[in-house]
Amino acid sequence: MRMYDIIEKKKHGLALTRDEIFDLIEEYTAGNIPDYQMSAFLMAVYFRSMTDEEIFDLTEAMATSGDIINLSEFGDRSVDKHSTGGVGDKTTLIVAPIVAAAGGIVAKMSGRGLGHTGGTVDKLETFDGFRTSLSPEDFSAQVQKYGIAVIGQSANLAPADKKLYALRDVTATVDSIPLISSSIMSKKLAAGTRSIVLDVKCGSGAFMQTANDARALAEMMVKIGKAHGRNTAAVITNMDVPLGHAIGNALEIKEAVDVLCGKGPEDLRTVCLTLASLMIELSCSIPADKAREMAREILESGKAHAKFCEWIEAQGGDPAAAKDTSLLCTAKHVKKICAESDGYMLSCNAAAIGTAACVLGAGRQTKDDVIDHSAGIILLKKPSDFIKKGEVIAELHTNRTGTVAEAEAILRSAFTFSCDKVEPQKLIYEIVN
Amino acid sequence: MRMYDIIEKKKHGLALTRDEIFDLIEEYTAGNIPDYQMSAFLMAVYFRSMTDEEIFDLTEAMATSGDIINLSEFGDRSVDKHSTGGVGDKTTLIVAPIVAAAGGIVAKMSGRGLGHTGGTVDKLETFDGFRTSLSPEDFSAQVQKYGIAVIGQSANLAPADKKLYALRDVTATVDSIPLISSSIMSKKLAAGTRSIVLDVKCGSGAFMQTANDARALAEMMVKIGKAHGRNTAAVITNMDVPLGHAIGNALEIKEAVDVLCGKGPEDLRTVCLTLASLMIELSCSIPADKAREMAREILESGKAHAKFCEWIEAQGGDPAAAKDTSLLCTAKHVKKICAESDGYMLSCNAAAIGTAACVLGAGRQTKDDVIDHSAGIILLKKPSDFIKKGEVIAELHTNRTGTVAEAEAILRSAFTFSCDKVEPQKLIYEIVN
Repeated sequence: MRMYDIIEKKKHGLALTRDEIFDLIEEYTAGNIPDYQMSAFLMAVYFRSMTDEEIFDLTEAMATSGDIINLSEFGDRSVDKHSTGGVGDKTTLIVAPIVAAAGGIVAKMSGRGLGHTGGTVDKLETFDGFRTSLSPEDFSAQVQKYGIAVIGQSANLAPADKKLYALRDVTATVDSIPLISSSIMSKKLAAGTRSIVLDVKCGSGAFMQTANDARALAEMMVKIGKAHGRNTAAVITNMDVPLGHAIGNALEIKEAVDVLCGKGPEDLRTVCLTLASLMIELSCSIPADKAREMAREILESGKAHAKFCEWIEAQGGDPAAAKDTSLLCTAKHVKKICAESDGYMLSCNAAAIGTAACVLGAGRQTKDDVIDHSAGIILLKKPSDFIKKGEVIAELHTNRTGTVAEAEAILRSAFTFSCDKVEPQKLIYEIVN
Repeated sequence: MRMYDIIEKKKHGLALTRDEIFDLIEEYTAGNIPDYQMSAFLMAVYFRSMTDEEIFDLTEAMATSGDIINLSEFGDRSVDKHSTGGVGDKTTLIVAPIVAAAGGIVAKMSGRGLGHTGGTVDKLETFDGFRTSLSPEDFSAQVQKYGIAVIGQSANLAPADKKLYALRDVTATVDSIPLISSSIMSKKLAAGTRSIVLDVKCGSGAFMQTANDARALAEMMVKIGKAHGRNTAAVITNMDVPLGHAIGNALEIKEAVDVLCGKGPEDLRTVCLTLASLMIELSCSIPADKAREMAREILESGKAHAKFCEWIEAQGGDPAAAKDTSLLCTAKHVKKICAESDGYMLSCNAAAIGTAACVLGAGRQTKDDVIDHSAGIILLKKPSDFIKKGEVIAELHTNRTGTVAEAEAILRSAFTFSCDKVEPQKLIYEIVN
């Protein structure tokens, strides 16, 4: 294989063979193909796309480029959940214990990531003593005993994807459905679960801005999963607006516990029940309506909260704060943002709110930044709510007084208002399976 | 300027500003933009193209990235000729002395290049003692005195193009009209002549395979030249078939001298008169028909041959061989290739014939290869000729007996024959000015 010919072939819109794709990934990962050839190839893929077969092969080639987690001891019950990323997305914290309580096996590796807040493992570190790094033996033992463990990505999962993603990130070749779907699914395949449920976010705060793009990505990922023998389903959910009211690590933990205790915002509860039902349906081979009933019962009966506390404790975290969230860390400063006039909230740009949270200290801008677990934003009002002049719309929680003005300006730019009544936005667009 | 944003902009089909293009070229040449970003950008240009303004700016940015030859002492009379490259293309050897004899100033830097035969300077080195490297003072003095000098590219002309071309060559981003036209014209602008005549080759042995592609390239290069204040014209000529009968360095010198002496093949003579007429028209401000008449008279009267001999001698070459071509070096082995049956020659693939000549030693495959000046091919028959079984179609000239069989096989694959009469191909497709 000459890389030049591979680029030329894709440039002319021809499909690569399975051997060509495996060679390409193997040689690139081994450092035998220079970045300048790979980036030209990636740009050609952006313009010419790939066939389903090419995407299946690319995903498999990347998935098998490193470790493959063996969860065969759990039979069909292992299940993973992946979100394409959004603002205020704390669903894993709620969904994982519901599914584990139902008998599913949630053995999950989760990235930290850059952006508005930390990733799931960053949020979990809000609990004093919580260990996001476990030995393979401890991980396996915890999963065996409790049916649930979420740790930072320790294994060498899909290193080819890691190298490729870093290149795509600096060459404007991220936004290609074949490349996004194969990237996500290569890590999911390597993570070894029998079932995969994908939460594809759609809107201003998501990577996919339109329903069509989100559907295309969801359909492709489901196809890839099925082509590789995994039970796969996707839910397309609204991310024009942050999910729930809390954005920030400790604030989101508190909100997740609220939901687990039968309180918390309705939108978050609904998305979590939808995801959990699908995960139970796939991992426990239960019909959809029964799985939904089971998820709701587990949540309402307090079993999910009990499983959550058990999980936090099993991973070394102090369960006291999981029972009484007033024990969680809090920020020194809380600035209330008030409405300047009466009106209905029309929109609340999730991306801008994420940026404001990051400015307050809730997220990382570079991978060496330290997260302030107590920082973040509480949205007291959301689109379609009527707001009176002077009423509090949001709270900024931070320990950095120097950036409050900047965060407030960003936050205010995120909102638009209307004198007329505003219809609530759709929350769940579609289930793809 | 962030390179990421530039790639993103081009990827979405937007035009870059003049400042963005100049920054891009300056920063890339300075090594501040990595190849992997530039190659992604180049692939985006392949798919999205560029506006005329962008192409003009890109050409200028590359032209001004190094030395600019100052030929202002020659006023409007300096003129350059560029061929996009073909098999058996020895036109410069004939055209340059015709134009110089008419009063034009041919002060030319010429590359060596890879491929079927050497470049013009390689061919000139067939003359013992010929110097392809002159100091700027000697170059200028010779041009002043004789109106003609052709040397290897010594100055640092358009280094940005050189660096970019090397990258395009390995990333399958050569075949883009904006990139080809700006690359060629950046060097022509830096070479400093007031007028530029382009020979755009079209067909199996050329970079441009179709008349439409050749026309698009010719039109763009003429536009670029004019936008930068140069008198510019292009001729689109046939390169489905090699030009003339000879392919190889000494063999082509002999054929060029034949034409200069009023003999030689008609196709070569016609293309040369067309190019020379245009160069005289532009550099001497003479109407087209008068320029054509002048070129013909100069060729037929022997003035062009006299200028040729003067030129070879001025650059240190032995003029004896320019008068008596039997003194040129010859190959030890000449293998005659005979027809296997009666018929009309239908086609004679120029690219394949170039490859066969290279195999015999006439060209370079890597830049360190040494050219055998005596090696090459004589085509005794060309398309539309009737050939009897056993008649000689071609001769292989070489000092390498080991590769004759390979060259013969390649050569034979280049020809197709027909029982029916074959119409001669068009030689000159179009003049663009």
